[in-house]
Amino acid sequence: MKAAIFRGPEQPLVLEEVPTPTPGPGQILVRVAACGVCHTDLHYIDHGTPTFKPPPLILGHEISGTVAGLGDGVSGWREGERVLLPAVLSCGQCAMCRSGRENICDQMVMFGNNVDGGYAEYVLAPAKDAFRLPEEIPLVEGSIIADAITTPYHAVVNRGQVRPGDWVLVIGCGGIGLNVVQTAAALGARVIAVDLADAKLEWARRLGATATVNPQRVERLDKEVRRISGGAADIAFEAIGNPKAQEQAFACLRAGGRLVLVGFSPHPMSLHSGKVMYREMDVVGSLGCRPVDYPRVIELARRGQIKVAELVTHRFPLGEINQAFDTLRAGEAIRAVIIP
Amino acid sequence: MKAAIFRGPEQPLVLEEVPTPTPGPGQILVRVAACGVCHTDLHYIDHGTPTFKPPPLILGHEISGTVAGLGDGVSGWREGERVLLPAVLSCGQCAMCRSGRENICDQMVMFGNNVDGGYAEYVLAPAKDAFRLPEEIPLVEGSIIADAITTPYHAVVNRGQVRPGDWVLVIGCGGIGLNVVQTAAALGARVIAVDLADAKLEWARRLGATATVNPQRVERLDKEVRRISGGAADIAFEAIGNPKAQEQAFACLRAGGRLVLVGFSPHPMSLHSGKVMYREMDVVGSLGCRPVDYPRVIELARRGQIKVAELVTHRFPLGEINQAFDTLRAGEAIRAVIIP
Amino acid sequence: MKAAIFRGPEQPLVLEEVPTPTPGPGQILVRVAACGVCHTDLHYIDHGTPTFKPPPLILGHEISGTVAGLGDGVSGWREGERVLLPAVLSCGQCAMCRSGRENICDQMVMFGNNVDGGYAEYVLAPAKDAFRLPEEIPLVEGSIIADAITTPYHAVVNRGQVRPGDWVLVIGCGGIGLNVVQTAAALGARVIAVDLADAKLEWARRLGATATVNPQRVERLDKEVRRISGGAADIAFEAIGNPKAQEQAFACLRAGGRLVLVGFSPHPMSLHSGKVMYREMDVVGSLGCRPVDYPRVIELARRGQIKVAELVTHRFPLGEINQAFDTLRAGEAIRAVIIP
Amino acid sequence: MKAAIFRGPEQPLVLEEVPTPTPGPGQILVRVAACGVCHTDLHYIDHGTPTFKPPPLILGHEISGTVAGLGDGVSGWREGERVLLPAVLSCGQCAMCRSGRENICDQMVMFGNNVDGGYAEYVLAPAKDAFRLPEEIPLVEGSIIADAITTPYHAVVNRGQVRPGDWVLVIGCGGIGLNVVQTAAALGARVIAVDLADAKLEWARRLGATATVNPQRVERLDKEVRRISGGAADIAFEAIGNPKAQEQAFACLRAGGRLVLVGFSPHPMSLHSGKVMYREMDVVGSLGCRPVDYPRVIELARRGQIKVAELVTHRFPLGEINQAFDTLRAGEAIRAVIIP
Repeated sequence: MKAAIFRGPEQPLVLEEVPTPTPGPGQILVRVAACGVCHTDLHYIDHGTPTFKPPPLILGHEISGTVAGLGDGVSGWREGERVLLPAVLSCGQCAMCRSGRENICDQMVMFGNNVDGGYAEYVLAPAKDAFRLPEEIPLVEGSIIADAITTPYHAVVNRGQVRPGDWVLVIGCGGIGLNVVQTAAALGARVIAVDLADAKLEWARRLGATATVNPQRVERLDKEVRRISGGAADIAFEAIGNPKAQEQAFACLRAGGRLVLVGFSPHPMSLHSGKVMYREMDVVGSLGCRPVDYPRVIELARRGQIKVAELVTHRFPLGEINQAFDTLRAGEAIRAVIIP
Repeated sequence: MKAAIFRGPEQPLVLEEVPTPTPGPGQILVRVAACGVCHTDLHYIDHGTPTFKPPPLILGHEISGTVAGLGDGVSGWREGERVLLPAVLSCGQCAMCRSGRENICDQMVMFGNNVDGGYAEYVLAPAKDAFRLPEEIPLVEGSIIADAITTPYHAVVNRGQVRPGDWVLVIGCGGIGLNVVQTAAALGARVIAVDLADAKLEWARRLGATATVNPQRVERLDKEVRRISGGAADIAFEAIGNPKAQEQAFACLRAGGRLVLVGFSPHPMSLHSGKVMYREMDVVGSLGCRPVDYPRVIELARRGQIKVAELVTHRFPLGEINQAFDTLRAGEAIRAVIIP
Repeated sequence: MKAAIFRGPEQPLVLEEVPTPTPGPGQILVRVAACGVCHTDLHYIDHGTPTFKPPPLILGHEISGTVAGLGDGVSGWREGERVLLPAVLSCGQCAMCRSGRENICDQMVMFGNNVDGGYAEYVLAPAKDAFRLPEEIPLVEGSIIADAITTPYHAVVNRGQVRPGDWVLVIGCGGIGLNVVQTAAALGARVIAVDLADAKLEWARRLGATATVNPQRVERLDKEVRRISGGAADIAFEAIGNPKAQEQAFACLRAGGRLVLVGFSPHPMSLHSGKVMYREMDVVGSLGCRPVDYPRVIELARRGQIKVAELVTHRFPLGEINQAFDTLRAGEAIRAVIIP
Repeated sequence: MKAAIFRGPEQPLVLEEVPTPTPGPGQILVRVAACGVCHTDLHYIDHGTPTFKPPPLILGHEISGTVAGLGDGVSGWREGERVLLPAVLSCGQCAMCRSGRENICDQMVMFGNNVDGGYAEYVLAPAKDAFRLPEEIPLVEGSIIADAITTPYHAVVNRGQVRPGDWVLVIGCGGIGLNVVQTAAALGARVIAVDLADAKLEWARRLGATATVNPQRVERLDKEVRRISGGAADIAFEAIGNPKAQEQAFACLRAGGRLVLVGFSPHPMSLHSGKVMYREMDVVGSLGCRPVDYPRVIELARRGQIKVAELVTHRFPLGEINQAFDTLRAGEAIRAVIIP
């Protein structure tokens, strides 16, 4: 099969012919229909973050496709069925998995990091972890559900605990932030979206934001949020990974409010711990999505309560994967996918 | 009646004869049996933190006593009954009260801050907010339940969500921290208590700590906590209000763990927000205690599952209240009470 | 003012001229725009259920209007503002109120039951308990939010804990059941609606039901639910108040599933307690809605995620109130309102 | 090895020499120190309830012992280590397991039901599911933790959500009920224990019950509970499996209260569904215990907050297992164990 091979940081991926893998016991072979391109890949390629399986490695963790082969003992799947793979596999045995927090499994296995991923014609996956993708969701664009849509779902529903009528602030309207916007809005929240790029704010409005703010155009973000909401934000999401933005998000919250960190930053933030105590605030992180929640996200997508295909603004064949990363680096795409 | 009057910061309280107040509709008059002395008072006296009701004001918010008079429309109370007053009264009308978070009521009224408190022979209180103090709890020492015991209860049960078997870290073994230790231990947690003073660690062990650490005697606190727990802390409480201690407490937590800030600091802490996100941590504040939880704390005290009288190490008559504050300033008392 | 007076069971209401009430301290006088007609009224009129305030009494608990007068000490309201009154007022002092369960307040006060209600030109209400009705919601039809929409919201969100993707069964598609259908669907659930009347099932589909079942047309309801869902219902709502329907709803649930009783029945149901234990089921009741949740419901209505005006199929002037009850008795209306 | 073989209902178990099993990949071989005798066994033997693995089968699901052999790939265990086996193994893959409800796993495997159990000298278990038993807990008596102590823990903590100060009613003081009593009391609840046998009520008092009631000596149980609690029970546990007792337990609850069914009954109960709705009650089942909670129970036992060894009133060698069942049938034992 053809695959784009990651041979180490600061090198373009290399398109090669490699053996098509054979499904082992309990595994399915998936014919990749599409694989979403994600900033996580750029951490490996541009910033030298090491992958768990050292190169050579096939990257890519937002995978949709069709079942192309069944290993021993697999039941419940037939060849040709439409399938979505979760970005991360969990062990089912550690205390986190057993407490309903499989998204922070001690032994998590990520496609395109611990094992070969989706920038290839075929990929292997445990049959027990794959999800059916219904006909109403296009096969190619559906790939981005596995991370770009599920990560925001977990952040909004489980970590943010957003309820109808909440005032929700979202700082950063990239691929993750915009989906926080639309998921919170779909569930009845009033969303204030914040970004430096007006084009992204336009996207936020289209996806349900009640109000948008370009912080370059207001004196102080927290004052503007107070003006818009007639109070303060109940819940704030930071989806960039920038300490200053995290601090601003915190400043916009009401007493008893909640800051959810969805963006990763290697640098610390300055936290007004006195306010955390005296106003009884919550500051919580959010990572990925529990596999058990994927069917919930798929259902929201299936009936159109959250949009998926509209977010895929760029499509590339496997041979142009390095151009796809350039688009991502330039911040041009909402979401780009590779079609092997 | 006699009362110790606060006339402004950086002055001793002045013992004066003032009119005994008369209970209005719905109020009871309480003959004060004892009033606990708390660091919060020193904020007003030593550090100039303004009180909501400007001086002259009677301070004191940990009040026990007996009913000495009933206002119009009061039912359910008889003169002579033993009574505990909550440190803070809530409005019952704001969104926080109506959501079960009355401890962060928008309109909270604190004894010895918004209204006259307990450093006097008598004090007024709304009948609907007073609690019965059972015979098994001594009247004088029971006063400290109203803050020194209830604040840790709320922190442990509601904000920390401590469960049996959890490894719990408590940094700071003063009046609040020690009661976090004993409440967590009473509910089945394994507690590691941390303080610079060995005498306080001895108290912590007596109150149920599984292990104690004097950070001056170990190379790194987080390594020591990992060694003791064979993993890391599930939940950490910071009960000093010191940014460095808050950061250390955070460093001792497992993935998915929770830092509870019970101590107030005016200075920000440096928060490793990348770990918050990637390990899905919680950082939460804890303030006071919901009045509705007072009967739960009283019951734990009544049956001896948490100790109260033992913690009262110093007793002063009203006329020696300024000496009581000196004892507090010197860190000599676990808990001191004024007996008017 | 004109009012329809309830003089006792089994008599029509009598239209009379009575003194317009004067707002006391903390009260507002509301010029009634509309008052929804509810089956609860028929309990008093037809079935002899006693009202808490004995007749003569003005019934009616789904009230919208405009502020027409302010009592002493009222701030935050101006004459002419659009207002929605909650069906029930809570005390804010009992343990239930203080725990965030004000909808089962020990001292609840219901309009048209404990105090005069909305079948009149004017009604008094505590200013602190009234809600602003935004311009996007029509004043007349908005009245039904106060019970017909809020009761289902509480049942779905708080008691049912419905999440996106859940399979939800709703038995009974009257005024309450249909709003359970639309609220659950709005929040991403897949709803199977059940009723004997095909016209109501048509309404259910229009309000978002994924599937509908007329039990007269299937051999066994539970088998049909299993066929449609490819498993079983996660959560079932019984919105009639019929023991047989309650038992059928229970039979349609998966292991670990939840039955929510929204309809009242004076007769016991037969509960398969062995299944409750062995499959770890939940059977829970749902009563009314917490005032603190009204703004959340109003926001869902304001943005059109749940429909309100469409449900008002009948409008009557105050003088024809007895005809309105006839319409209700005949099961003709989804929702009828009185316009004084 | 020697084993007591179940050859079918209505026959005594037969002591036989059978091949000692060999641990497969991921398994440990456990030298059984003791295996608790449980009413569940009598369902198979006396009442014909079929076992999942048809006879011949080795029964017994409360197993403690020492590691006697390691299969391929097992790490983290050494021969001779003290081990407790959970009564039930979960799959880790179904939606229930993945949601933190592994105790109602779709594919649960129970010792002495789906696979050979502990009435033998040796038993096989997956290494990943075994728990370390600390030195402070005696090896023989510790066996009963696996069911007799864990099932009540789950019922009290997860399903009952008992909090300090709650009034808790427990109907039935057998092996399960008494441990509900002591677990609730250890966590700060006020327990009213109910049984027809005064000797068991004496046990309940010894294990922390605040009050006991023999229903033969009172006119009405619910009135007596109201008298004792000065209100009504917050949470009631039925630990017999008798519809009448379930109905009585329900009648003793306050508005918003919770009935937890821990005992299994094949017969339906009559449920006052109108009260469930109007008083917003909860009726929930409780089955077994999540493996992830075993270490929490072990810790409560290790430090003596709940008693274990005291509950083992009878000990039998493997050859006298049928006499052990007779003791159980006669209701003589609190808890009996077999020592192979």
